[in-house]
Amino acid sequence: MSGPILVLNPNSNAEVTAGLDRALAPFRLGGGPEIECLTLAEGPFGVESRRDGDAVILPMLALLRSRPEAAAVVVACYSDPGVETLREQLAVPVFGIQEAGVLAALARADRFGVIALSEASIARHRRRLRGLGLLERWVGEEAAALSVAESAHAPATLEEAGRRLTARGAGALVLGCAGMAEARGPLEAALGVPVIEPTQAAVALALHAVLAP
Amino acid sequence: MSGPILVLNPNSNAEVTAGLDRALAPFRLGGGPEIECLTLAEGPFGVESRRDGDAVILPMLALLRSRPEAAAVVVACYSDPGVETLREQLAVPVFGIQEAGVLAALARADRFGVIALSEASIARHRRRLRGLGLLERWVGEEAAALSVAESAHAPATLEEAGRRLTARGAGALVLGCAGMAEARGPLEAALGVPVIEPTQAAVALALHAVLAP
Amino acid sequence: MSGPILVLNPNSNAEVTAGLDRALAPFRLGGGPEIECLTLAEGPFGVESRRDGDAVILPMLALLRSRPEAAAVVVACYSDPGVETLREQLAVPVFGIQEAGVLAALARADRFGVIALSEASIARHRRRLRGLGLLERWVGEEAAALSVAESAHAPATLEEAGRRLTARGAGALVLGCAGMAEARGPLEAALGVPVIEPTQAAVALALHAVLAP
Amino acid sequence: MSGPILVLNPNSNAEVTAGLDRALAPFRLGGGPEIECLTLAEGPFGVESRRDGDAVILPMLALLRSRPEAAAVVVACYSDPGVETLREQLAVPVFGIQEAGVLAALARADRFGVIALSEASIARHRRRLRGLGLLERWVGEEAAALSVAESAHAPATLEEAGRRLTARGAGALVLGCAGMAEARGPLEAALGVPVIEPTQAAVALALHAVLAP
Amino acid sequence: MSGPILVLNPNSNAEVTAGLDRALAPFRLGGGPEIECLTLAEGPFGVESRRDGDAVILPMLALLRSRPEAAAVVVACYSDPGVETLREQLAVPVFGIQEAGVLAALARADRFGVIALSEASIARHRRRLRGLGLLERWVGEEAAALSVAESAHAPATLEEAGRRLTARGAGALVLGCAGMAEARGPLEAALGVPVIEPTQAAVALALHAVLAP
Amino acid sequence: MSGPILVLNPNSNAEVTAGLDRALAPFRLGGGPEIECLTLAEGPFGVESRRDGDAVILPMLALLRSRPEAAAVVVACYSDPGVETLREQLAVPVFGIQEAGVLAALARADRFGVIALSEASIARHRRRLRGLGLLERWVGEEAAALSVAESAHAPATLEEAGRRLTARGAGALVLGCAGMAEARGPLEAALGVPVIEPTQAAVALALHAVLAP
Repeated sequence: MSGPILVLNPNSNAEVTAGLDRALAPFRLGGGPEIECLTLAEGPFGVESRRDGDAVILPMLALLRSRPEAAAVVVACYSDPGVETLREQLAVPVFGIQEAGVLAALARADRFGVIALSEASIARHRRRLRGLGLLERWVGEEAAALSVAESAHAPATLEEAGRRLTARGAGALVLGCAGMAEARGPLEAALGVPVIEPTQAAVALALHAVLAP
Repeated sequence: MSGPILVLNPNSNAEVTAGLDRALAPFRLGGGPEIECLTLAEGPFGVESRRDGDAVILPMLALLRSRPEAAAVVVACYSDPGVETLREQLAVPVFGIQEAGVLAALARADRFGVIALSEASIARHRRRLRGLGLLERWVGEEAAALSVAESAHAPATLEEAGRRLTARGAGALVLGCAGMAEARGPLEAALGVPVIEPTQAAVALALHAVLAP
Repeated sequence: MSGPILVLNPNSNAEVTAGLDRALAPFRLGGGPEIECLTLAEGPFGVESRRDGDAVILPMLALLRSRPEAAAVVVACYSDPGVETLREQLAVPVFGIQEAGVLAALARADRFGVIALSEASIARHRRRLRGLGLLERWVGEEAAALSVAESAHAPATLEEAGRRLTARGAGALVLGCAGMAEARGPLEAALGVPVIEPTQAAVALALHAVLAP
Repeated sequence: MSGPILVLNPNSNAEVTAGLDRALAPFRLGGGPEIECLTLAEGPFGVESRRDGDAVILPMLALLRSRPEAAAVVVACYSDPGVETLREQLAVPVFGIQEAGVLAALARADRFGVIALSEASIARHRRRLRGLGLLERWVGEEAAALSVAESAHAPATLEEAGRRLTARGAGALVLGCAGMAEARGPLEAALGVPVIEPTQAAVALALHAVLAP
Repeated sequence: MSGPILVLNPNSNAEVTAGLDRALAPFRLGGGPEIECLTLAEGPFGVESRRDGDAVILPMLALLRSRPEAAAVVVACYSDPGVETLREQLAVPVFGIQEAGVLAALARADRFGVIALSEASIARHRRRLRGLGLLERWVGEEAAALSVAESAHAPATLEEAGRRLTARGAGALVLGCAGMAEARGPLEAALGVPVIEPTQAAVALALHAVLAP
Repeated sequence: MSGPILVLNPNSNAEVTAGLDRALAPFRLGGGPEIECLTLAEGPFGVESRRDGDAVILPMLALLRSRPEAAAVVVACYSDPGVETLREQLAVPVFGIQEAGVLAALARADRFGVIALSEASIARHRRRLRGLGLLERWVGEEAAALSVAESAHAPATLEEAGRRLTARGAGALVLGCAGMAEARGPLEAALGVPVIEPTQAAVALALHAVLAP
């Protein structure tokens, strides 16, 4: 029997972790691996800068080294902090939610867009996509100008950001933050295109890695 | 309760379908969708040319229109025949195994390679990757010079093709044919890098699309 | 003496074929190959979807196999349906008008734009250009929101679409439909940049292939 | 009646001009434009450096200003010297043979290669292709290590260079010098892929520009 | 002791040269190379076309051949005329200010923009950037619609062009003309992002080449 | 009077710092800024993994916050650890030596190569170049299979790695480690192409940022 998929929220906001836990319920299937959501106690309340992202890498590594039974790891922060380092240091598959969310979107539409919480993160996300070599089919990223707390309730600004992206040619959208999971369904219904919740996407890819016989 | 994931082998070789069926067993989880493998009776014994790929599109569409209860569709041929057309014509998510296999590989390593059955398919696969905008992290494709029947048994030529790709920098490999599923595990063990069986990858992405609440 | 250049309109609208026939008159030169325009009886009245494009491939192949004396083939539909398959199956050079039109534009200006009949075709054309690796010098595609029938008469909306493209930096324009041939001259006069009628471009490239000694 | 297509050899080697004149004979068709080949008296005996290419630009411009009846201009040197400047300064369409040859190759195969006379020109040609944004489908350039004089006779080294390129995936070849015209047919016969003589390609594109009504 | 860095203004406007001389004063350091600014007497009053740029190449080469003691050369015109040819013909390092300015900007920000004097130069500059393979991190170029003389005084239109670029994501700006040096400091103060004067950037790179032991 | 340029060696090997200090002597010019080399006491003896690079970021930031008088900062490790984070957190210009070395090489040749100490770093460097959008003119990276200590003495393996890169088309080379400074001159003499010592390149770019008035 395989070990669990660990979904690690690198900030210390347990409400975000609880939201992820709810969003991942449908992926807990009979005979499949456990999916366990963790909060990084040492993390900041939110990862809002590159410095915040750098600061959580070694604590994440220490926490994950203490869980050698894990079958796969998901880093549940859209900045993908430490993903390459964890891959270098750990034997198990490691998934970042930005890269997983974008890969899942690429499987659903020719071109995709990203909905960010704030303008400030767009340049950082774009830079990550360039590093991944995945800008070719990206139509852009639009900010909804929300706090993480507000984002969970799918307010009108999320939908407006999504409409700007579909008008620019996006056939699928990625939610650019781990804390927007509850907005996924309503947004998809409102916009008529697939909306990817990136932690779900990462868990699906982790399931693939764990289940492949 | 959602409908099944239909995995459609567009050739008429029922042994290939049976092999896929076995390879997908681990993805049939309690509470998850059924995964049903189909053989396209009108298909050629193997899809070995663009013409073969074109010829199966309308029959696949007809078959899938007769199954409106499907929750998602996987086209289980590495040439991804008809994937864009099926997306245009059907309301459910449609996955091609080449694109899914490559996306799954991108989630596992910085650069990936593809093992082809034969030299003849390399140019066609490369062209598809260009169309997908996914050549940036591709190190190349190497042919094992096998028939589909031979490929299932992981002979030495598969392993040699894989070693040529890892020597060129591939950190993950994709099996470039739907009929190589049984070789996945042995190859991964022999080569020490993730080896992606592309129909499994497509089914994992289909699970994501079906399960996201 | 070489055989004819066959220009195959894959829809069944004989008026479009007749328009092409008139547009190609200047390319019928003394001592050069015949240029024969054909209508595909099995084709739809217009190719308006990927499915329509897929459906004409095998009938085109059958028709062309019945004309072994052909020296070259032009597929006169801007979606380039079946071009790669015909190249795979036939010994003669095969030209698609989208790729030919774009290549001719690249010989006339640093950057080019495309005038589409309708918004719906833009994403499909863009995807084709990505597959051809020819997006680098593309400024965009603008729709004139016309039916095929209306497009022949160079109405103001064509000119407006063209002006939006030159304002974005296009130094040459491609007409994104086989049915706009009569608009070419007036548009070029109005806009002051080369306007490429893509079937003419394809026939010029076919002449090159046939005449090279 | 339109004026002539002027094909300007920017070196002073009249034998090269005579070879072009013979190669273009099949493009002189009844009712079509005259095709007149010119030697640039002020040019060097061969254009073998960037400096040589720069030095011919103003003399070419002066010569062409003295021929206002021209309908189109072809610069028959594979370095494409002065092509952008002539386009800026003259009202008629101007074609460079490198860009025309490559565009014609792109209409014949998914990927192409170039046969150079000498190693020294490869980096220059590659840089030109990057400037044209046309490296995506280029498999490489191989040198035959010949003088211009030797190249006309299709020696074995040309064929060997071509075979190295087809082995790397080239489905069409471009002769990377204006002086290789006589080798085109024999090479095509020997190698089994289209071989493009670039001055012929440029004249075909010039015919298109002149004939489009 | 090394020879001087020669900064060659290829137009005959001595006021531009004098402005560069003042802008370079801070780079004249004790123990470092002399920095000598030269005006090309044969040059036009301004380089405003590709033809102008071509016309100065051989005179620049002649002038520089007469100064064999030079340790490095800077071509102080944003079109980078003759840079490749001078590199081919001279043994010393040669720097073009467009490429140097852009490289310096890339060292200061993830994405950069360029402020042009006039709309007319934007397409030429963009083409140069494509040739350099450096468009990936370029957000665009905006024209201030100034004459060279006006540009020295940092009028409001320069600042407005800069603001349009920072709004599009530019984290650093390059002045797209050798004559804007006096505007650099005020613009940087007004806009809050690094503003690169490209001749200064080229001299810094020349210092590197000369001083490396 | 401006503050110093701080050159921070993020490993704790003071010999590497001393080597940099010697290599930077020529850049200490009368009237220019001081150039002060620092060793990060908290750093590992060598930065040999992504984890090592992550671990030095916060200590570097703390050290640099204690030096508010600095005019510019150079991170003297070829992995560019923390460069983006330091830019985000500090008001002064920050330069990474990989990016600076590559930018300096781009100013010297059309295509460049990198000499790595070991195979293990090549994939990491390549990934950084993709993130910088600077792979277009990169011919490759070759490893000399040396320890840092050995690398200072320009052994034959460095020269051999360089020759493999020039044979592949590199017109300039970058030393892919901060500890190879003494090898620069001998390698350049042996290979006949510019060899860039990346800390020198970064200091030159820092001088530009500090001196621009």
